[in-house]
Amino acid sequence: MMRITVSFLPSELLPKPLGAVAPDGQDSGVLPATAIVIDVLRATSVVSAALANGAKRILTFADLEEARSHAMGLRDQQEAVLLCGERNCQPILGFDLGNSPAEYDRETVQGKTLCLTTTNGTKALQAAQPFEKILTASFTNAAAVVAALPHSNQPIHIICAGTDGSITGEDTLLAGRIVDACCKSFGAKIDNDSAEIARRYWLQDEQGQSLAERLRQSQGGRNLDRLGFGADIQRCAASDTINVVPQVTARSPMEIAMMR
Amino acid sequence: MMRITVSFLPSELLPKPLGAVAPDGQDSGVLPATAIVIDVLRATSVVSAALANGAKRILTFADLEEARSHAMGLRDQQEAVLLCGERNCQPILGFDLGNSPAEYDRETVQGKTLCLTTTNGTKALQAAQPFEKILTASFTNAAAVVAALPHSNQPIHIICAGTDGSITGEDTLLAGRIVDACCKSFGAKIDNDSAEIARRYWLQDEQGQSLAERLRQSQGGRNLDRLGFGADIQRCAASDTINVVPQVTARSPMEIAMMR
Repeated sequence: MMRITVSFLPSELLPKPLGAVAPDGQDSGVLPATAIVIDVLRATSVVSAALANGAKRILTFADLEEARSHAMGLRDQQEAVLLCGERNCQPILGFDLGNSPAEYDRETVQGKTLCLTTTNGTKALQAAQPFEKILTASFTNAAAVVAALPHSNQPIHIICAGTDGSITGEDTLLAGRIVDACCKSFGAKIDNDSAEIARRYWLQDEQGQSLAERLRQSQGGRNLDRLGFGADIQRCAASDTINVVPQVTARSPMEIAMMR
Repeated sequence: MMRITVSFLPSELLPKPLGAVAPDGQDSGVLPATAIVIDVLRATSVVSAALANGAKRILTFADLEEARSHAMGLRDQQEAVLLCGERNCQPILGFDLGNSPAEYDRETVQGKTLCLTTTNGTKALQAAQPFEKILTASFTNAAAVVAALPHSNQPIHIICAGTDGSITGEDTLLAGRIVDACCKSFGAKIDNDSAEIARRYWLQDEQGQSLAERLRQSQGGRNLDRLGFGADIQRCAASDTINVVPQVTARSPMEIAMMR
């Protein structure tokens, strides 16, 4: 039976995730489970958009200078690279792209390697390191991610990025949506209270409020609105418009590519 | 205007809480705010019961041996002391009382000093250390706590204990109930997404489920049921049956007494 757990923040998993113990009782450092990393506004929505528009792979970095030097190294090897990311929601001086899904159109990203650095999304990916399989999800590709989950006894662990250590409503909503879809489609068993709290937060009737309105009222939504990125909220709320499943395909640096 | 924030876990506040900066901009180490500490199953329910039944004061300790030696010191000074608490929900060998509200009747506790050690509740109290005013709440005294809150611009910060680092539904429910009561009674402004998530978790219609049933399905409730303490869930769900407001009255050790 599928079992599903939610962490509202990466810090709930670090430094020790769940006890990285292999089935034989030995500590292998690898958890036989699937992690789904969520940073709705906007890192994982950007990842979905970039891969849907043909980006070859996305390398993610915690550190800005590390992203820059890695990109330069790849360029020296004649690889087509874009340097991408944000700090405090804003584009970074000298970078090719910021953190708005609108920038990641086909003409810009097709066939390219992206070197991406975002504050919160990167921390969530790092917290997912011990998991055997790591996917990323946004509202735009949520149905595709759910459909791609293994129907095995391996636990599913959803990791919300939050913002600067604070739990955010927008990530909780998507976590709840995925939990609910897994319960309905696969009869998944909810394995911690956070998963149940997220599911009910997603399900509760908000008097006909649209998803975009709910995202706009969350901490991340209010931040984006204030900084003039309000249009991105609508983009990140376009549910199930993208049929790609981003998967971590290498670990150092963390590389994300389309699931094969 | 009253502003209200929720932390689902003490770890969200430690090591640095919110930035302990006084109004004059100097770091005073004291936050001009009220913390409400919640550990529904069962530490803060025990605190409510004990004070309602006439306990003189409750000294809380993280460490079992520290609780024991402090109690012995007080006994040497002819103080009437009870050594109380739990580890993994179970009574502690050689202690006078465990962690069931039923044990804290008037005959047992009146006029006594209690030395209490509980794993999760103590961590939540420690996380509240920087706050100028610290109250504790349970469902049994929630209305009294809300009525006692200052109607000032000082922020209210609810700190949920959780269980061993995991967010628990039972603490989230009470946090949501207090947030909702503050919104309705005082027009309080919700200041972080966790407070909104908790409020909606509390408000959502669970098809006529009683509070005791909801507590029983939470992580803490399932634990208690499994260990044979199911009757305590009903006791902790007896909303607004106690009219006391426990307040921290000294810090080292953390002492809780009835608000004057």
